[in-house]
Amino acid sequence: MPKVSNKGKMMPESPIRKLVPYADVAKKKGHKIYHLNIGQPDIKTPEVALEAVRNNHVQILEYSHSAGFESYRRKLAGYYTAHGIPVDTADIIITTGGSEALLFAMGTTMDAGDEIIIPEPFYANYNGFSTASGVTVVPVISTIDEGFALPPISAFEKLITPKTKAILICNPGNPTGYLYSKEEILQLAEIVKKHDLFLIADEVYREFTYDGDTHFSVMNVPGLEQHAIMIDSVSKRYSMCGARIGCIVSKNKEVMATAMKYAQARLSPPTFEQIASEAALDTPQSYFDEVISEYRERRDILIAELRKIPGVKVPTPKGAFYCIAELPIANADDFAQWLLESFDHNGESVMVAPAAGFYSTPNVGLNQVRIAYVLKKEDLVRSVEILKKALEVYNSK
Amino acid sequence: MPKVSNKGKMMPESPIRKLVPYADVAKKKGHKIYHLNIGQPDIKTPEVALEAVRNNHVQILEYSHSAGFESYRRKLAGYYTAHGIPVDTADIIITTGGSEALLFAMGTTMDAGDEIIIPEPFYANYNGFSTASGVTVVPVISTIDEGFALPPISAFEKLITPKTKAILICNPGNPTGYLYSKEEILQLAEIVKKHDLFLIADEVYREFTYDGDTHFSVMNVPGLEQHAIMIDSVSKRYSMCGARIGCIVSKNKEVMATAMKYAQARLSPPTFEQIASEAALDTPQSYFDEVISEYRERRDILIAELRKIPGVKVPTPKGAFYCIAELPIANADDFAQWLLESFDHNGESVMVAPAAGFYSTPNVGLNQVRIAYVLKKEDLVRSVEILKKALEVYNSK
Repeated sequence: MPKVSNKGKMMPESPIRKLVPYADVAKKKGHKIYHLNIGQPDIKTPEVALEAVRNNHVQILEYSHSAGFESYRRKLAGYYTAHGIPVDTADIIITTGGSEALLFAMGTTMDAGDEIIIPEPFYANYNGFSTASGVTVVPVISTIDEGFALPPISAFEKLITPKTKAILICNPGNPTGYLYSKEEILQLAEIVKKHDLFLIADEVYREFTYDGDTHFSVMNVPGLEQHAIMIDSVSKRYSMCGARIGCIVSKNKEVMATAMKYAQARLSPPTFEQIASEAALDTPQSYFDEVISEYRERRDILIAELRKIPGVKVPTPKGAFYCIAELPIANADDFAQWLLESFDHNGESVMVAPAAGFYSTPNVGLNQVRIAYVLKKEDLVRSVEILKKALEVYNSK
Repeated sequence: MPKVSNKGKMMPESPIRKLVPYADVAKKKGHKIYHLNIGQPDIKTPEVALEAVRNNHVQILEYSHSAGFESYRRKLAGYYTAHGIPVDTADIIITTGGSEALLFAMGTTMDAGDEIIIPEPFYANYNGFSTASGVTVVPVISTIDEGFALPPISAFEKLITPKTKAILICNPGNPTGYLYSKEEILQLAEIVKKHDLFLIADEVYREFTYDGDTHFSVMNVPGLEQHAIMIDSVSKRYSMCGARIGCIVSKNKEVMATAMKYAQARLSPPTFEQIASEAALDTPQSYFDEVISEYRERRDILIAELRKIPGVKVPTPKGAFYCIAELPIANADDFAQWLLESFDHNGESVMVAPAAGFYSTPNVGLNQVRIAYVLKKEDLVRSVEILKKALEVYNSK
């Protein structure tokens, strides 16, 4: 009987999906579960995007251009330019989700055995894309006590080897909610220029910043044009996770020509979702004002409530819609499983994402969880109440 | 300045896209170009699929299941079973096109440096997926004189090394139009069982068979369950190339569990296109009867007309909608470029795909072209007329 590949065996399982069987146990008991564990927003997709799909006039659902609709790329370049990121149509390839953009970026810049430095905790699927690409993740730890700020540049310097090809950041960060400052981005720019590396920035949460902080893109650094690769997606901006439309953006012509070969091999991104994504660019500003204001209120309530629980430590996230919280427990994997299998408060419990899955270094973040604030405020308040009760019971076992 | 990866440099360019700049030259001259070079059908997508998208009730475009809609998988399993391929819902993962299914199949079964044997000429993007996966393609030549039948099994035997992990076939074949017989599939089954290999079969043209020949799937071979991986797609069956919906199908549980890890890393296939694909399963049989009958007529006219040209050799394709024709020329790359740049007949010319790009062995098939019969009959007749005139002029230069 033929065997699967070693690469396939090494492909990580999602840290969230591991808990699904236990959630099924809770559901079988009739318990209501509040999902703090996933980044699926409950926000309505802009009507203008949905309407464009309902009103489409497609008669033959043909392949589109491998780089995506020319009209969409042109309009998207205009969107970025209007938002202070000056890019041209030729700097953009539309991808099937930010996921494919990351795969293209890795395939374009790295060979099997090459190394990519990523501040951890990081989006768990970076492990999957790295394994699929045969690339080794070299983590550099950011700490909860520093609010998950950029680790000192000296920590990056120590990790750079001849095999290092890129540094990958997520800004604002999933799972940390941390927003890198302009100064931090400039520090990263210096080190990638010094060592001839690429700086790949996953900026899919760009619009989700609070407290008046503005996002500073890697595309905004003068002189970084040949090093900077931006990853983007419509998933969070327009609550269109199911569209699977993203893009890879760079001013480096060799990078774009190479990424284009990957794009041509898979022919084209999906058509209806491009229709939705192009139309979504006409979403009125009022939509975003409401969404950002809603997320800010959710964040403020969530953080305030969490901090009322004795022994909980949680930095205030500046962007995206996640926070990492340290709980007064030894092992969040065990706690998260127990919450689903063995606990309820008036028939309700919560599902959280143990943070260890977001670290590449073993045995780090064991007492941390990621919480997504994608539920409405009253549900967040109730969720934290359940969490508090649960911690009391769990710790008196 | 950082450099792109060696893998990225090795990624092949599509043999068709190379000609696009010359087609642009022809268009600038105002010439009408008949596209015999691409497999984009002119057939209308089934109304039931388009209607489902226009009438969708999505309010939040959420991630779907990483394996695709459960309802779609269940219905698709029913479709296969009704068509004589007994598979269960659990044997199917919905992918973003047959392209992604091929990438999942390679990542699941092969490590960097492993070898995959493919009868050539083969679908050119197999080279791209192999390069992206770090896998080495080992071609085995099928010949125009044998009508591109399966090469003798002894030719496969000679190529098998400890690094060989799979044999990949396309059935019916793009670019050959060859339909493997039941006996040929059984021969392949024996050799993969003997050497503990996977047999990956790209069966996206399954329904396109003519002359009463029936398609025999790798899923139909008793005892091959642990070896067989089927690749499928809605692109051709429903003229929905732009949907980018396909699937990977296998009874091998370890293969499916591993492919699922790749599927989870990229989250989900696109939602609207799944809505279209699920609805497409209700396409009435009359649609297929008309389509197959149309393609059969096109094939018969194309082959008959081509054979009237002195020096042209072309086997009758039994399936799909391509043929490989040998022309009385030395170099089809040069001829195809000349057709666009320097030739017209009453302001019209044709675009063909030089077949060398479908061979992995250098300097094979240099005098062959692939012709897709996805145009209406009168256009095919006119195209061959142009081709005949062009060959006269080209060969009297």
